[in-house]
Amino acid sequence: MNGQFADDSLSLHTDLYQINMAYTYWKDGIHERNAIFDLYFRKMPFDNGYAVFAGLERMVDYIEQFQFTDSDIEYLHTIGSYDKDFLKYLKHLRFSGNLRSMKEGEVVFANEPLVRVEAPLIEAQLFETALLNIINFQTLIATKAARIKAVCGDDVVMEFGTRRAQEMDAAIWGTRAAYIAGFHATSNVRAGKLFGIPPAGTHAHSMVQAYKDEYAAFRKYAEAHKDCVFLVDTYDTLKSGVPIAIQVAKEMGSRIRFVGIRLDSGDLAYLSKEARKQLDEAGFHDTKIIASGDLDEYTIFNLKAQGAQIDMWGIGTKVITAFDQPALGAVYKLAAIENEHAKMEDTIKISGNPEKVSTPGKKRVYRIVNRTSGKSEGDYIVLEGEQPQEQQKIKMFHPVHTYISKFVTNFEARELHEDIFVNGELVYEVPVLSDMRWQLQESLDCLWDEYKRMLNPEAYPVDLSETCWNNKMELIKEVKEKTEKRLNEWNAREEKGE
Amino acid sequence: MNGQFADDSLSLHTDLYQINMAYTYWKDGIHERNAIFDLYFRKMPFDNGYAVFAGLERMVDYIEQFQFTDSDIEYLHTIGSYDKDFLKYLKHLRFSGNLRSMKEGEVVFANEPLVRVEAPLIEAQLFETALLNIINFQTLIATKAARIKAVCGDDVVMEFGTRRAQEMDAAIWGTRAAYIAGFHATSNVRAGKLFGIPPAGTHAHSMVQAYKDEYAAFRKYAEAHKDCVFLVDTYDTLKSGVPIAIQVAKEMGSRIRFVGIRLDSGDLAYLSKEARKQLDEAGFHDTKIIASGDLDEYTIFNLKAQGAQIDMWGIGTKVITAFDQPALGAVYKLAAIENEHAKMEDTIKISGNPEKVSTPGKKRVYRIVNRTSGKSEGDYIVLEGEQPQEQQKIKMFHPVHTYISKFVTNFEARELHEDIFVNGELVYEVPVLSDMRWQLQESLDCLWDEYKRMLNPEAYPVDLSETCWNNKMELIKEVKEKTEKRLNEWNAREEKGE
Repeated sequence: MNGQFADDSLSLHTDLYQINMAYTYWKDGIHERNAIFDLYFRKMPFDNGYAVFAGLERMVDYIEQFQFTDSDIEYLHTIGSYDKDFLKYLKHLRFSGNLRSMKEGEVVFANEPLVRVEAPLIEAQLFETALLNIINFQTLIATKAARIKAVCGDDVVMEFGTRRAQEMDAAIWGTRAAYIAGFHATSNVRAGKLFGIPPAGTHAHSMVQAYKDEYAAFRKYAEAHKDCVFLVDTYDTLKSGVPIAIQVAKEMGSRIRFVGIRLDSGDLAYLSKEARKQLDEAGFHDTKIIASGDLDEYTIFNLKAQGAQIDMWGIGTKVITAFDQPALGAVYKLAAIENEHAKMEDTIKISGNPEKVSTPGKKRVYRIVNRTSGKSEGDYIVLEGEQPQEQQKIKMFHPVHTYISKFVTNFEARELHEDIFVNGELVYEVPVLSDMRWQLQESLDCLWDEYKRMLNPEAYPVDLSETCWNNKMELIKEVKEKTEKRLNEWNAREEKGE
Repeated sequence: MNGQFADDSLSLHTDLYQINMAYTYWKDGIHERNAIFDLYFRKMPFDNGYAVFAGLERMVDYIEQFQFTDSDIEYLHTIGSYDKDFLKYLKHLRFSGNLRSMKEGEVVFANEPLVRVEAPLIEAQLFETALLNIINFQTLIATKAARIKAVCGDDVVMEFGTRRAQEMDAAIWGTRAAYIAGFHATSNVRAGKLFGIPPAGTHAHSMVQAYKDEYAAFRKYAEAHKDCVFLVDTYDTLKSGVPIAIQVAKEMGSRIRFVGIRLDSGDLAYLSKEARKQLDEAGFHDTKIIASGDLDEYTIFNLKAQGAQIDMWGIGTKVITAFDQPALGAVYKLAAIENEHAKMEDTIKISGNPEKVSTPGKKRVYRIVNRTSGKSEGDYIVLEGEQPQEQQKIKMFHPVHTYISKFVTNFEARELHEDIFVNGELVYEVPVLSDMRWQLQESLDCLWDEYKRMLNPEAYPVDLSETCWNNKMELIKEVKEKTEKRLNEWNAREEKGE
């Protein structure tokens, strides 16, 4: 299929219903009405206390390149009975709106807008699928990786999962997300090339097989490479692998750096402790022990509790697929739309589940940081125009269980969104990855430890300002009254047998 | 990052250790020795009775395009101290070997080679990561989709998961895998364009929100589109959504086809039955009921048991991520390698777990089909040169628990691998997707129902010929003796204090 379309683009990487809604709006002439959509998730992934936002760079690329090509338009022509003028309109469509977003590496929470798109309805609608696809995956993996990184402390953590990733993009963008979250290296060479992530890896069991024995394999490897990590578990780790690695290292002397040995199977706690002894006895105190093989935050936590002598971790399947929860369920909801009188009107999506009711209106998100402790009191969502940074005291209360409330003073209100696109122009310079790593570190430093523990963390407050909350309640009331009125009319007609 | 390298290729989509092993082999001058690798998985995904092979087309594309570009070589130059001549060698490297593979849509099982690569060691080694990445994911999703398809019977099943997919490739190749497994349509427009999969989708809740009420939304949609499926659960499915959909359909008359209504939340069993009554009472007997919202084979199985009146299914997260097991653990093991006397030698990987011991040698895979029943007796792995299709009687026995055995006569031995590349030349024409769907249907027809049930299926036999089994046992013995000899020597030296 490759090369089938020389001008293939990602603009059709969307759900068909987006095109069909776009067509409806276009036919009705409302497609250029201004609309505001919020992208957010409702539940913390892995029941973690925080999530790590990632995906902005890819989103920027997607939007900058958004443009239906000739073959895209031709394809749309073949599948629907869309007007030719509509297709012509699409052909010239570029992003002309505003987009604000969290920074990559920012810690984020359920029920706060991560991305806010303000654009002509048709543009904002067409972006929904791709933006969710990008942000859902990359934020998921960054969060999983942050959990793993947290239990590893200062140990080196490497992403080794390409072979188990969900196709190629997942391998590439997933390892980048893990790097933002604090991983130190990737096995994927292309990710190293594209993103500047340090690549890591030495050899597999197949090399020992190819040479039939460990001595020949290690020796040949050492003759070709200065930095050596030997995989020692092909036959018998303690009686064969480690002693032979030591023997080769002694033979090679200063011609190599005996960086480490890698354990990929067996009881890692026991083997690492015994291997450490052998290395120390041979004088290789600086030679590291690297572990791999289906590891995640739980296995690492337990290995450390058992006193495993492991210095570096290679993590594959469990991080690159977010194995225990392989999807983040972010949604993209209409918060406001221009009406026929060219005035913005807030919109809401009602649900039987109070957690699922969307928050209407054009909003901003602040982090309320206590000036004394330097720690965050929670995130605070306001309607555009409110100035929490100028207030002396704010009331923070749970948006569903409103009796949970507190007054906060002596705070700094830090706005979390950055302007990314303004009137279709990219106004944001995507930072280098190392800045994103710092961003995460700074953001985590601002959180109390209670939000950061692996198991049963405290729930971080994401509150609405009173103005924002009142606006939501009023809209709920309005919609409920309208719906009831419609149902009453309906029932009355039914009784009359209409 | 996009466009950073005009000549970016997928050739660096590999683990760094593959490059480092390649360098070791090149330095040692053994890189062009002939090697045979088998790609296979050891455990059935989802504990299903069969898996559905997918990924061949992508693998063919990858291999055909395999070629290190200038920027690839330049990157390798910056990260290692590889000899310039090695990089020059890589620059001119193309696939020159043989590759045999299962067909896409074939049913396959644990512990049988899905792909066999026979090539110069360096080429075969460099491909490992990408081939595993491709086959692991696509086979996983095709298998998950086949499970879902099986409970849906003749109902229409559509893949709706792009927004929850693990990045863009996963959405595209995943929906293609689902289509091979019998899904009927995709929401992803680009997948429709690239693969010719029928695209499907009408509108979202946001359209109802944009128009504020269902009547306006449905009416505007109907004025723009001939085929109409209305999403009826935005406010109140039975009191508002369905009646208004019926009202609009009656008003529009023959100007539209009232194809269906879609339910995306609530109790789908109850709502679908009540909605069916309303549609039937209004005379819309042919209007379908479509359900979506976190569905998988278990929920569908239960909905059907409850008599839900659902005709079509939209499946998202659970199929596109293979949610309950998001990775397939296929491996790529060296089965034979040319020695210093230019003679092929079989190799084995030993493990404490008997299921994990690899099967040495150059092998072929046959399906043994009973001529009377037309059903398969099992798969049968032989060493190259054996001719099971010419035998009158074969003994099939479990390769670990050998007392489980049977003699089979009156059978047809169907070889399962196709030649894909011969001496580096592509000799295989990738079939159209509809042929792959037929392939799966035919292969499934050949299996007894006991292997196909959703829960606790019978284990399908994957047996070794006696020759192949004996060869394996001899090699195990040989390796064990060698290892023991080495250990004894080691212990003797230790006692002497060397």
